[in-house]
Formats: sequence, structure tokens, C-alpha cells
Amino acid sequence: MTQRHPFDEASRLERRDDGALVGRTSPAYWNFAGPFGGITAAIMLRAVLEDPARQGTPVAMTINFAGLVAEGEFEVVPRLVRGGRITQHWAVELRQADRVPTTASFVLARRTETWEHQPAAMPDVPPADAVEPLDTTRWMPWLSSYQFRFVAGAPVLSRRIHDPLHPQRSVVWLNDRVPRKLDWLSLAALSDAFFPRVLHARGIGAKMGTVTLTTYFHCDQDELDAQGEAPVLGVADGERYSRNFQDQRIQLWGRDGRLLAVGGQVLWYES
Amino acid sequence: MTQRHPFDEASRLERRDDGALVGRTSPAYWNFAGPFGGITAAIMLRAVLEDPARQGTPVAMTINFAGLVAEGEFEVVPRLVRGGRITQHWAVELRQADRVPTTASFVLARRTETWEHQPAAMPDVPPADAVEPLDTTRWMPWLSSYQFRFVAGAPVLSRRIHDPLHPQRSVVWLNDRVPRKLDWLSLAALSDAFFPRVLHARGIGAKMGTVTLTTYFHCDQDELDAQGEAPVLGVADGERYSRNFQDQRIQLWGRDGRLLAVGGQVLWYES
Repeated sequence: MTQRHPFDEASRLERRDDGALVGRTSPAYWNFAGPFGGITAAIMLRAVLEDPARQGTPVAMTINFAGLVAEGEFEVVPRLVRGGRITQHWAVELRQADRVPTTASFVLARRTETWEHQPAAMPDVPPADAVEPLDTTRWMPWLSSYQFRFVAGAPVLSRRIHDPLHPQRSVVWLNDRVPRKLDWLSLAALSDAFFPRVLHARGIGAKMGTVTLTTYFHCDQDELDAQGEAPVLGVADGERYSRNFQDQRIQLWGRDGRLLAVGGQVLWYES
Repeated sequence: MTQRHPFDEASRLERRDDGALVGRTSPAYWNFAGPFGGITAAIMLRAVLEDPARQGTPVAMTINFAGLVAEGEFEVVPRLVRGGRITQHWAVELRQADRVPTTASFVLARRTETWEHQPAAMPDVPPADAVEPLDTTRWMPWLSSYQFRFVAGAPVLSRRIHDPLHPQRSVVWLNDRVPRKLDWLSLAALSDAFFPRVLHARGIGAKMGTVTLTTYFHCDQDELDAQGEAPVLGVADGERYSRNFQDQRIQLWGRDGRLLAVGGQVLWYES
């Protein structure tokens, strides 16, 4: 009997006798006061990808973190809003009792060969195995489910109030700590596997959390499969921090300088 | 009696006797085969902002264009998914008979004074009145509801197949053709008031359309009010075009170099 990868264990969904699709929060992907948002994204995407009505591969997702997911069981309810010749639009809710802590929308599509162009260029960086992983053992549990090899903009939490701000841009090799082939679920999760830009820039810890996450998938199934267990290069930057909210935009680069996914999120910060 | 601005006429919602919130498509904001996506975004946001349960100002929106909105009447159904101390999460559907051509999610928040930082810088450009507006009179109707003053990357649709690609980045002053003070609705609409990047890059017309749009609002009410009727500077760029889909990311700049909003979208293109 093979052991399930921690990521698959944490994103597992089972059909209960009453028809409900249920999952359970996982200690290995726990953040401060709820699950790592990326694992929640993966769980909601799994509900769509494993639905018998699913057609095509993911093109876009938006996850809205409306409230904390409490430790324990939850139900995931996927709904096909509309399916056309090319695209499918799904709306998904994660429910705990009468609360809906997370909503999501997904666009899937049957993609075909078309004109191709990639104006964006992957940063010129040393290979992942030439970079030391960040020691995250004393941080939130989910961080230890990944390896973070910062090429630029590692988080440094020792800034004093009158020091100049730190750079908010990060370039970082990312991979599951226990090797696992990249799939749609882990790519979705990786798109949230960045530290808040406000933490990088200010160099101080404070209350903060993602309120909404959007990811666009540029790769199709073959490119995803070609990635295998190789690390993905993440780039994250932010444009403005104002009155409790900041934006963050990211890129995830794969083998041969292919841009696998791009996206953005808004984070709340307290003060 | 004052005449309603065409934008307000086009985004108007009325409460029917049966309680339904209804609107009607507008010729002034018509695109190829349905309404301009920005006016649909504005209509769905209006349903939230005019709801008695609404608290705070918009922080984020995602609009999913699942199918064509047909000419005529539609119903808008806003639902408060969750309201907390700081944020509200709304889910909105636009319905025509038994079809749901558009879904949306909005995050609103009561923002407070916090640490401020804007790493992004507004491009150095000539003032709007020094730039000639694009002649859009022979194009889709909605384009004539705006003025487009391209500083860089104007669309040029005369490229031949072996010519080098055109730049896909645009910098453009944007305003309502009939002057109107900027508000949340028009800012939401402007975040979709860009030509597809694939059209800019290839310099040819082809079948294409937005499938999902996400906008993050950085301004609060006072900054929005300070903008008045002044044009907004739009910047749009794209990172990858692959197998029927491209991304586009945008910035909307206001007075004094303030970043009012940022966002992204995915467009489908045929071949």
C-alpha cells in the first residue's frame, strides 16, 4: 500500500452517504488561525476537477476568503454555472455548518493550438540546487510543507522603524518538501505560496491575511506534465499599500522559461 | 429636470413590484454581440452599493463572463455571503430567463488610516489635453462613450503577417466622452476599457472576448472624490498568449500620481 502524499491527504475529498462532498483541515497545511489559503484553493479546485461534468483544464480561478475556516470537517459544493462549447464556469462554496467561509469561481476550457507569444521573460537566476532553503521550522506549519529558496527579496524581520524599507519584490524557487509531480492542484496552491509583500517591505510581523486570490493558468496539460517534480520559480511584487489593503502580483515559471501561471491577490493588514 | 448621464442611464437598476432588481442593456455601451463588459461590471457593483446591507467601499471585484448578455432586460441578484467587522463579501448573479450569463464577487471594507506606501510609479506622460483622442466613430458603439488618448501603444490594425509584432503595452488617457465625476461604478467600468492585448500585438482583428476580469481598488472615497472629471491614465500589458487565452494586467492612475486601481483579465482569442 502506497502512502498518500501530505498534499493529497490535505486536499482529499470524500463523498458522504448523503451525497455531500466533505474534507477535513490538515495540521501540515495550517497557517496562523486557519488553513493555508493555497490548500483551500486546491481543495475547491479538486471538487471541480473530479466532478463528472468537468470539461477542459483550468484557465482562471478566484478564491474569496470571507472568513476563517475552522479546524475540522467542511463541505465543498461545486456548481456548474454555465458550460459552453469552449469554456465552463463553476461556482464553488466551502461550508461549515451555516457559515460560508470561502467562495470560489473557476473557468475551465478546452484549449487548442493557436498563435503563441510570450512577451514576459523569466528572470536570470541560479538553479534551485545552488540556493539554500529558508529555515521555516519555527514558523507556521504550512511553510514546512514547502521549500523556499530565495534568490532575491528573502523576508528579513529585523527592520527598525527608521531603517529604509526593504524591497517588496521576491524571486524564489518553490517546491513541495516531499517531492510530488506538479498538477493543477499544486500549481493552484503555489500561486498563494508567497509571504505578504507588506511583511517584506516593512520587515516586521503584524496581523495580515489574504482576502481574495486570483490565478490565471497559462499552461495546458502537456506543459504541466513536463514540469514533473522540478521546482517552480516564483516572482512576487506589490504596487500599493493603502488603508489596510495591499495588492500582490505573482508569476510562476516552469521549465524552459515557460510562464505557467500569473495572478494577484489582495491582503489585509492591520495598521 | 436634469438629464441622466448615459453611463447612469445604462447602469440603472429598478426594483420591480415582485421585488426583482432589473436593468436593461443600452445601445450606447454595446460591444460586438453583447454589452461592454465594463458596463456589466458597473451594473453588478451598483446592485451591491445600493443594497441597504452594504457597508464600506470596494476593495476587489471579479466578474465572470460566462455567456453573452442578450439585448433587453435582465435581473441582478446580489447576495451578502458574509459580513465581518471589517470586510463584506458579496456574490452577484446577472440572470436572463433561466440563464446566468455573468457572475461576480465583490469585497467591500471599512478602511482606516494605516501605514502607506506606493512602490509603483506613474509613467511620465504628456497631459491628456496634449494628446489627440482616437477616432472610434466607426468602431463598436461603447468605444464612443469614452475618449481614448493613446500616449503609447495605440492599436494599429494594418500589420501584415511577416511584419514584426507590435508592442502589446499601452499607455492611454481615459475619460467619459460626456464629462462625469469618477465614482466606483465608472472606475469599475474603466478597468475593462482596454483593447485586447492580442489585438495590439498582432495588429489584426479576430474573434476575441473577456472571460474573467478582476480589479483591486486602492483608493478610498476621498481620493475617488478628488479625481472629479479629470481623465485617468491607463496602463495595460500582457505576459503570455497561449492556446486560445491571454492575460492582461492594468493600472489606473489618478491625480498626483496615485494608483487608484490595478487588475487583470483573461481574454479568449480564436486562433
